[in-house]
Amino acid sequence: MITDLMENERLDDLQRNGLKIIQKTDGFCFGMDAVLLSGFASVKPGERALDLGTGTGIIPLLLSAKTKGEHFTGLEIQTEIMKMAQRSVALNGLEKKIDIIQGDIKEASRIFGAASFDVVTSNPPYMNDAHGLKNPGDVKAISRHEVLCTLEDVVREGTKALKPGGRFYMVHRPHRLAEIITVMRQYKLEPKRMKFVHPFADKDANMVLIEAVRGGGAWLKLEPPVIVYKEPGVYTDEIYEIYGY
Amino acid sequence: MITDLMENERLDDLQRNGLKIIQKTDGFCFGMDAVLLSGFASVKPGERALDLGTGTGIIPLLLSAKTKGEHFTGLEIQTEIMKMAQRSVALNGLEKKIDIIQGDIKEASRIFGAASFDVVTSNPPYMNDAHGLKNPGDVKAISRHEVLCTLEDVVREGTKALKPGGRFYMVHRPHRLAEIITVMRQYKLEPKRMKFVHPFADKDANMVLIEAVRGGGAWLKLEPPVIVYKEPGVYTDEIYEIYGY
Repeated sequence: MITDLMENERLDDLQRNGLKIIQKTDGFCFGMDAVLLSGFASVKPGERALDLGTGTGIIPLLLSAKTKGEHFTGLEIQTEIMKMAQRSVALNGLEKKIDIIQGDIKEASRIFGAASFDVVTSNPPYMNDAHGLKNPGDVKAISRHEVLCTLEDVVREGTKALKPGGRFYMVHRPHRLAEIITVMRQYKLEPKRMKFVHPFADKDANMVLIEAVRGGGAWLKLEPPVIVYKEPGVYTDEIYEIYGY
Repeated sequence: MITDLMENERLDDLQRNGLKIIQKTDGFCFGMDAVLLSGFASVKPGERALDLGTGTGIIPLLLSAKTKGEHFTGLEIQTEIMKMAQRSVALNGLEKKIDIIQGDIKEASRIFGAASFDVVTSNPPYMNDAHGLKNPGDVKAISRHEVLCTLEDVVREGTKALKPGGRFYMVHRPHRLAEIITVMRQYKLEPKRMKFVHPFADKDANMVLIEAVRGGGAWLKLEPPVIVYKEPGVYTDEIYEIYGY
């Protein structure tokens, strides 16, 4: 398998169903965000899921292992990362279950057709300060800052791609929560479940996990927080469980 | 002091600065909600604060003890409870620092004038199911269900009564969070700080504390959660601290 790797790539074990993933040695790696979103999302038997801005394909890979969903599609605009995700899918022999497609989030509902998925997931760029970037062509910058798509693009296209009653799962930064809720409701995507992630029990949250339903009624369930570390360098039991150790 | 009490009333010790409060023996009492909101809110030296729907006056009483705010006003529509609050203020000798005014939240900005407070607080009715109530004249029903005012009334009037840059503190139920944020932003009241209260560390939140700023920019700080019980019947240290035991 090692022969599939290219320069500056490494193969990591996902600790679940023997899955492996190709990542870059220079730091373009999936984060805890994607793992926690995969733990928070549910895909039911027979359902089809779309991941917007899939990067290395981490979310479809993890969801294919932890759920009984029928099929997973990952959309990624950047050629190099998209090809890495395709090779990870092949490496795990999951070509029939996972498609990695190259394309622009802003055109997702045109690419796949409206109302074509039961579930949409996304770990989108968090920062809306793209105008200040020195190198907007940078792969890492595109995954972290709203260079190629905005929060509104992700919500609009994800909602259109969902069937009525379909579920949208997103991880984002709490500092943008008010904007996230405003934009979601503008597109009739109603937040139904929310969970905050705090690095320590006495620190501010640095991630929010949201489940929203296309056309859902207003009633939000605010779940117990995820605490990442019980002491510096030591994960809580919940994190070990989500990571599958 | 006991001679100030009327039938079905009792005198409770607020465990702070020797403050006492008159409550009803039949259960019309302040809740943990009001105490946690008073712990969450800040009123700075020289500032004037308005509490919308003050009930027994618990929030102005606690804020007068824990902050250096200059003056506190409580607005309450129900005659019986409003008079109880006035007697509690007198009982504590705080007539110069706290005014209890009878009036309708829906007319607060007309009663007090626009842009006249630095801080507005509210522990409003939580339930928007008032049409199903059997006895809408009931004192407890009015404090718990949106019989006489809605969430939008509270936000609209509170925002108008605030100076630009003034702070609005509210406690509410998390299940209405999406609506709360939508309504606040509709009136240019931007959520800036938020804290969830969970009865136990592994249970859903049953209260949310929000600080919003009139005309503020979009950036939310999501603070560590408050956990109420560490085991059944035993409060966490944080709760003892907030209660001032």
